[in-house]
Amino acid sequence: MKALVLKDLEHGLEYVEDYPRPTSKPGWTVVDVRCAAINRRDIWITKGMYAGIRLPVILGSDASGYVDGAPVVVNPGLDWGDDPRFQSRAFHILGMPTDGSFAEQVLVPTANIYPKPKHLNFQEAAALPLAGVTAWRALFTRGGLSKSDRVLITGIGGGVAHLAMKFALATGADVYVTSSNNRHLEKALQLGATLGVNYRETEAWDKTLKAHANGFDLVIDSAGGAPYARLIKLLDFGGRIVSYGGTLGPVPSLSPQVIFWKQLNLMGSTMGSPRDFSDMLEFVSRYEIVPDIGATYPLSEGKTAFEYAANGGHRKVVITVKD
Amino acid sequence: MKALVLKDLEHGLEYVEDYPRPTSKPGWTVVDVRCAAINRRDIWITKGMYAGIRLPVILGSDASGYVDGAPVVVNPGLDWGDDPRFQSRAFHILGMPTDGSFAEQVLVPTANIYPKPKHLNFQEAAALPLAGVTAWRALFTRGGLSKSDRVLITGIGGGVAHLAMKFALATGADVYVTSSNNRHLEKALQLGATLGVNYRETEAWDKTLKAHANGFDLVIDSAGGAPYARLIKLLDFGGRIVSYGGTLGPVPSLSPQVIFWKQLNLMGSTMGSPRDFSDMLEFVSRYEIVPDIGATYPLSEGKTAFEYAANGGHRKVVITVKD
Repeated sequence: MKALVLKDLEHGLEYVEDYPRPTSKPGWTVVDVRCAAINRRDIWITKGMYAGIRLPVILGSDASGYVDGAPVVVNPGLDWGDDPRFQSRAFHILGMPTDGSFAEQVLVPTANIYPKPKHLNFQEAAALPLAGVTAWRALFTRGGLSKSDRVLITGIGGGVAHLAMKFALATGADVYVTSSNNRHLEKALQLGATLGVNYRETEAWDKTLKAHANGFDLVIDSAGGAPYARLIKLLDFGGRIVSYGGTLGPVPSLSPQVIFWKQLNLMGSTMGSPRDFSDMLEFVSRYEIVPDIGATYPLSEGKTAFEYAANGGHRKVVITVKD
Repeated sequence: MKALVLKDLEHGLEYVEDYPRPTSKPGWTVVDVRCAAINRRDIWITKGMYAGIRLPVILGSDASGYVDGAPVVVNPGLDWGDDPRFQSRAFHILGMPTDGSFAEQVLVPTANIYPKPKHLNFQEAAALPLAGVTAWRALFTRGGLSKSDRVLITGIGGGVAHLAMKFALATGADVYVTSSNNRHLEKALQLGATLGVNYRETEAWDKTLKAHANGFDLVIDSAGGAPYARLIKLLDFGGRIVSYGGTLGPVPSLSPQVIFWKQLNLMGSTMGSPRDFSDMLEFVSRYEIVPDIGATYPLSEGKTAFEYAANGGHRKVVITVKD
């Protein structure tokens, strides 16, 4: 079958037409892929910046397609396990080490296959799973969002942050955002965010946020680093901050006094449980939320698609496997 | 009435016999104090190391005594407010700015008065409230202790830590402790702790704990500082760490990756709600838990009692107001 294969890190992705088709086995189902989407994870793996890389492999965590003629999307989290609070040691993400969705067919556990939300086309449905479940778990399962919350979402240019914003706005929460890019901030305001602050242009970005929101009930962050300590101080009594990433590295100084006196909750979140995934799909369908698509490429131009995605913002780069 | 008064920080505590008795007012009740107990807070205030010191004042947050002949203990947390998740802005602790328990009588909100647990004498009952409610909230309300948990309690020489250990052992949890003092570790093992590690003698104290417990479900800490990052790494997936103090100051480096990948929960806790206090008393009565007393002094020797307490360990220094 046609597939985008990562044989070795030196040569990078290669489009082939003779990759062996997956063979079904009990409890697993072959999905005929229509669209796949690129995640940061895929890009990092091609650059060798990921733990436990095993090659050759077909990358791709996000997929929409057909099973027996029925339109489906795939939950990319495999072997989460029985505990909704955390993943099992066996947990892994579709597309390394398991062959992923940049191919005509992908083999996944049957339990990971869900009906495609009706309001989404196949491109949009493929852009949803990984970012959607990550945003959902961070915001609701871990962050416990309620509609009366004042929510701050940092780095709104990111795909997960952008979806988290759409989810939070759909519930009616009061949403504030940060970015280093005014275009992303303007987009957020158009969608209903209350305030956007450019942390690169505004040294005292935390003071600006404090002046407008007074304090936050919930912060959703994927950066960590030095700004994290300022985010903590923006939390109101009983406030929560959920980290789903750490692109700025370790937090250089954190005061226990602020944490205990304000009864704060600092939480981590990664991917999501099967329940998180099905709850996310239900919410996305109910509020007719649509992920943003930045560009689409045919599978044969996958390498170009990756180059585009590596420089892109929150908008997903979709690979159309079958028109 | 007889009282131990802090008139100014230069002269320190002064024992007087002519302090005006408190006058009752609607919603408040005068307690005839039998015993009071010294907390770190009292000592810090006498040294000027506390925010918003207002003088003159009678210190003392812990009290047992009588109301209309009935034996009582006092909840030292005033004006917690309506939300069980965090204290209101009006929240304060008995004994500065409100006159406290180092006196023959103390005026407290009637709702803060509870029947004395029957299995405790007045000395023991006076040693319980502040440390007890702090330990309770950290361990149960915030930490969500369950009896199948592996729990690590740091600085077991501290009064709150010691009570938290007794509470955790009463539920049947698997309890590990740390201290810089082998005497405290031996005492913990006698009471039922699984392992005690001296972090001053053992540079790789975290490796020792890891080797024995594998990972922890819950850590209770009042130090923060550099060891905090090591405590985080000792947590198992979904683990919780509750901070109720920060004697070692800011945490110098904290990795977001560990927090999000393991779905961790880093929480702060201070004092406790009225519900925390009554739940704590019920638990202490059910399991007949007794706080340790290190020494007792009459009110007239309060100054000496403070000097003793400043150098003491977890055992409470009690001031007997009336024999």
